[in-house]
Amino acid sequence: MAGSTAPIIFILEPFGGSIRRHNASLPFLFWDDAAVTRGDGVFETFLVRGGRVCNQERHARRFAASARALGLPEPDLDYWRSATAEAVAAWVAERGEEAEAQCVWTYSHGRAATGFPSAWLTLTEVGQRQRAQREEGVSVLTLPRGLLLNPQARDWMPAGAKTLGYAEAMSALRHARSQGCEEVIFTEGTGEDARVLEGATSTVVLVKKNSKMRTPVPGGEVLPGTTQEALFHAAQRSGWRCKAKDLTVADLRAAQSVWLVSSVRLAARVISLDGAPLPDPGRGHEREIRALIEEAVTA
Amino acid sequence: MAGSTAPIIFILEPFGGSIRRHNASLPFLFWDDAAVTRGDGVFETFLVRGGRVCNQERHARRFAASARALGLPEPDLDYWRSATAEAVAAWVAERGEEAEAQCVWTYSHGRAATGFPSAWLTLTEVGQRQRAQREEGVSVLTLPRGLLLNPQARDWMPAGAKTLGYAEAMSALRHARSQGCEEVIFTEGTGEDARVLEGATSTVVLVKKNSKMRTPVPGGEVLPGTTQEALFHAAQRSGWRCKAKDLTVADLRAAQSVWLVSSVRLAARVISLDGAPLPDPGRGHEREIRALIEEAVTA
Repeated sequence: MAGSTAPIIFILEPFGGSIRRHNASLPFLFWDDAAVTRGDGVFETFLVRGGRVCNQERHARRFAASARALGLPEPDLDYWRSATAEAVAAWVAERGEEAEAQCVWTYSHGRAATGFPSAWLTLTEVGQRQRAQREEGVSVLTLPRGLLLNPQARDWMPAGAKTLGYAEAMSALRHARSQGCEEVIFTEGTGEDARVLEGATSTVVLVKKNSKMRTPVPGGEVLPGTTQEALFHAAQRSGWRCKAKDLTVADLRAAQSVWLVSSVRLAARVISLDGAPLPDPGRGHEREIRALIEEAVTA
Repeated sequence: MAGSTAPIIFILEPFGGSIRRHNASLPFLFWDDAAVTRGDGVFETFLVRGGRVCNQERHARRFAASARALGLPEPDLDYWRSATAEAVAAWVAERGEEAEAQCVWTYSHGRAATGFPSAWLTLTEVGQRQRAQREEGVSVLTLPRGLLLNPQARDWMPAGAKTLGYAEAMSALRHARSQGCEEVIFTEGTGEDARVLEGATSTVVLVKKNSKMRTPVPGGEVLPGTTQEALFHAAQRSGWRCKAKDLTVADLRAAQSVWLVSSVRLAARVISLDGAPLPDPGRGHEREIRALIEEAVTA
């Protein structure tokens, strides 16, 4: 199978048990799965590089937290990890160790007909576009968040859960593309004083002179970022001063560099904001930040 | 096939064309469909009664509006209607005209691998629970809405679209059930002055003495209700005075009767609110309202 380009799919049993490889050219989801009908499930996306799963523990922890927030049975993380190891071994056997993969874990409330959760994982190639954005950076449109978490609903509304409901993010990205931008940074408020929240599918990280890194305070509308956490952890050990802090759009413009950080694309530098170019920090700076992130997630 | 209890599934072509019946015991959705991975699609739910699709035009109109809001290609409604007629004919042939069905249209951005939208419809039995709630009513927990539409995002965020992202509603229903209630009415604010929005999957209708009906003003967080619209249209012709109006939780308590109105369950009377029973309007009153709704949607 060397040279295959088909995704690798494994179907898991929700309460642990056997792992079954599924032929990627056949469908496996039923019309009545809560993932399909309600977006009622959770997911995590990992990078697989050199045959290793990057930053797995942070993702696994968030996956379990998301599942709890949605009232799903506690996932057996050892079982998920061993299924992932088996899928990665198959990937390496079929594609070679050099081929980067995107691994997605998905866990939903399952079929209405059975009442059992559904669980599966996929390994696919990292898209051409994502790889290009690592090198070339992205143009960004700032948009006021479409949906706001109601603080009065704190006792029942899951916050910080990575659910399958990404229609808001998809609409925002479509809007950005209609405006000639590739990516979105959500804000609270508008204008230069608007508070920066997060990217549509990424965490915002800002680099300042004097070896400082900043990211918006997670919680509420800001999903804690696994890649940003790994980065801050590694950067701090290398002498950077890293802090979560309220940031404005004006802070982005004043930064040495601004990054969208996420598990598979890793880091895409924001090259323009609402049509205005951000200052070019130079190739050396870019390489340094990217190396820090790569080291952080593969450590 | 008479006596079959399997759902009837038809796969549609996104740009019109052939209609294909799909064996309900086989899956047909792929792991990379936007309905599965992002909740990036829209749906409508219809009641099929006596071999007829109830209130079809209002649902079809809202379906097209939802699709537009999500940037999906304009659906060919004649094609969807004729596929539905074919499915309903199969249902009647297999189950008989007496068997009520729930018909769901789903339309998503489709597979990442193909870039084509996915489109399908299902016909299933009306659940035992839904039928029981028509007769017995429901206990309701009021909850402040979990997600609020940001008015500053009006130029890009789809409002009033019936998307597949119902994780908020599902979490609210799970919370309600953990509190011993069956249903949820979302509010803005808390306490007796809180503004009534909508049910988790229904429209709130309140009946007052002197032949008056009220429903919260649609728009923003309140999805325009197709069944409520049909009801108001029919009731007005029968001499009721019907109006969309801001309503509070206190208004619900003071009403002659309060109803959760939706396409398949039709109408479930709210028998208690946050644990406190609502006054019993009597069987005659209940029958009258229910008859109005049934007449409205089957007209």
